[in-house]
Amino acid sequence: MEQQYDYELEFKVRDYECDLQGIVNNSVYQNYLEHTRHEFLNDIGLNFTELFEKGIVAVVARADMQFKTPLKSNDKFVVKLRAEHEGIKYMFYQDIYRLPDNKLCLKGVITTTTLINGRLGVSTEIKDALAEVKANR
Amino acid sequence: MEQQYDYELEFKVRDYECDLQGIVNNSVYQNYLEHTRHEFLNDIGLNFTELFEKGIVAVVARADMQFKTPLKSNDKFVVKLRAEHEGIKYMFYQDIYRLPDNKLCLKGVITTTTLINGRLGVSTEIKDALAEVKANR
Amino acid sequence: MEQQYDYELEFKVRDYECDLQGIVNNSVYQNYLEHTRHEFLNDIGLNFTELFEKGIVAVVARADMQFKTPLKSNDKFVVKLRAEHEGIKYMFYQDIYRLPDNKLCLKGVITTTTLINGRLGVSTEIKDALAEVKANR
Amino acid sequence: MEQQYDYELEFKVRDYECDLQGIVNNSVYQNYLEHTRHEFLNDIGLNFTELFEKGIVAVVARADMQFKTPLKSNDKFVVKLRAEHEGIKYMFYQDIYRLPDNKLCLKGVITTTTLINGRLGVSTEIKDALAEVKANR
Repeated sequence: MEQQYDYELEFKVRDYECDLQGIVNNSVYQNYLEHTRHEFLNDIGLNFTELFEKGIVAVVARADMQFKTPLKSNDKFVVKLRAEHEGIKYMFYQDIYRLPDNKLCLKGVITTTTLINGRLGVSTEIKDALAEVKANR
Repeated sequence: MEQQYDYELEFKVRDYECDLQGIVNNSVYQNYLEHTRHEFLNDIGLNFTELFEKGIVAVVARADMQFKTPLKSNDKFVVKLRAEHEGIKYMFYQDIYRLPDNKLCLKGVITTTTLINGRLGVSTEIKDALAEVKANR
Repeated sequence: MEQQYDYELEFKVRDYECDLQGIVNNSVYQNYLEHTRHEFLNDIGLNFTELFEKGIVAVVARADMQFKTPLKSNDKFVVKLRAEHEGIKYMFYQDIYRLPDNKLCLKGVITTTTLINGRLGVSTEIKDALAEVKANR
Repeated sequence: MEQQYDYELEFKVRDYECDLQGIVNNSVYQNYLEHTRHEFLNDIGLNFTELFEKGIVAVVARADMQFKTPLKSNDKFVVKLRAEHEGIKYMFYQDIYRLPDNKLCLKGVITTTTLINGRLGVSTEIKDALAEVKANR
């Protein structure tokens, strides 16, 4: 079921993230999503920078984001995330809800994969950690 | 035919756009795509800021980007764009090619729409300008 | 005494803020300082966006930042701030300390001023609010 | 004499660089200055990333910027630079002028230094290249 999330992280809009329309610039949402994924990975014992230094490079293959309601100066919001391992892909379903009214702001599907020493492959570390997340749902 | 573009703009990667993996951060590609759309609009006589001041707010409803080859420090590249008006949507097909080898870096579909004085609607200015682009193809 | 601060705000480095040297890009520190100033203003009842909409435009006239120790991926830190009203200037002394070891990362002096309906002037709202901050020190 | 520059680079403001005040956000000027320094270094045969990979890490020790006139959407501008080697410091005097009216937008002094394999030191590569720039003035 889609509303089941594995992780969530709260943020507050920073004024420098807003553009001349007075709303958060679209590209900034990708920053929010990335930071949430990295914090989620940290939370399950995987550090993005440490993986990188071990030659495991997590890369985004596709980002598909639907923008529903713009965030504005001073808004608080939560990024929620569900992770699935599918073949050589790790899918992150990431949705952003404004707080406190829980209005849906963004619906995103981020497809990632890993390069291990430069070649596409499945990282055992990530696979096992995601399997444990799933088992604990 | 997909390879037919209406506009193209050349860029060079700036080092501050690269992240700790040594490649351009994914969110920065959205900046490249946005800047190219705004320059295209300028080119056909539509200024994003002027539209905004007239109450015509162009908003991105969906951004779907496939990341094919990462750009790195010092890379030059070109963003190519084709625009289509479809109902209340303006679709921008935007692809990024590295220069000089024309390697495909990103394939994007950006769906935009307009709010006119706060309500979803078709902007005659944009519609007419895009029709002229199409007629001149 | 310099170590007396009026406000402080905690942050955590986000990976997208790091550049290819693996440390937070210098320009990002200005973002941290700005966000802290705006949160401080909020805290004393002044909202940056609301001021802007009333025609009171707070602008940075000078930013002088000494970079002492770079912040890295996963670092936590605190931005501390002392505000002083001096003639037509509002001075913000802003220092960044890494947590938990309180290592000094940045020493900054940000000189701001206000344009009121386009002309340089002292905003009574800001002046009074800062006087109250001082009185409560 | 202050108006003597060693290098200059033209830019155009990108809309995503503007904040809710409708002007280029202050932190973005540091991006412009950094990109100009790196392009200048490239121009004199020094590549920032290559230096980094050789263990020569150029770091900013201090950035002092006076903001004179804000840049806006669609503005073109030029960043001019003069470089001086002084002891263990490389000083970059960097000024931004709006085009075509040459209005001064920013006056900056960026103090940089180099870490060679983690220790403060003078990079022979940079020192020699800057000496040649000076000889050719």
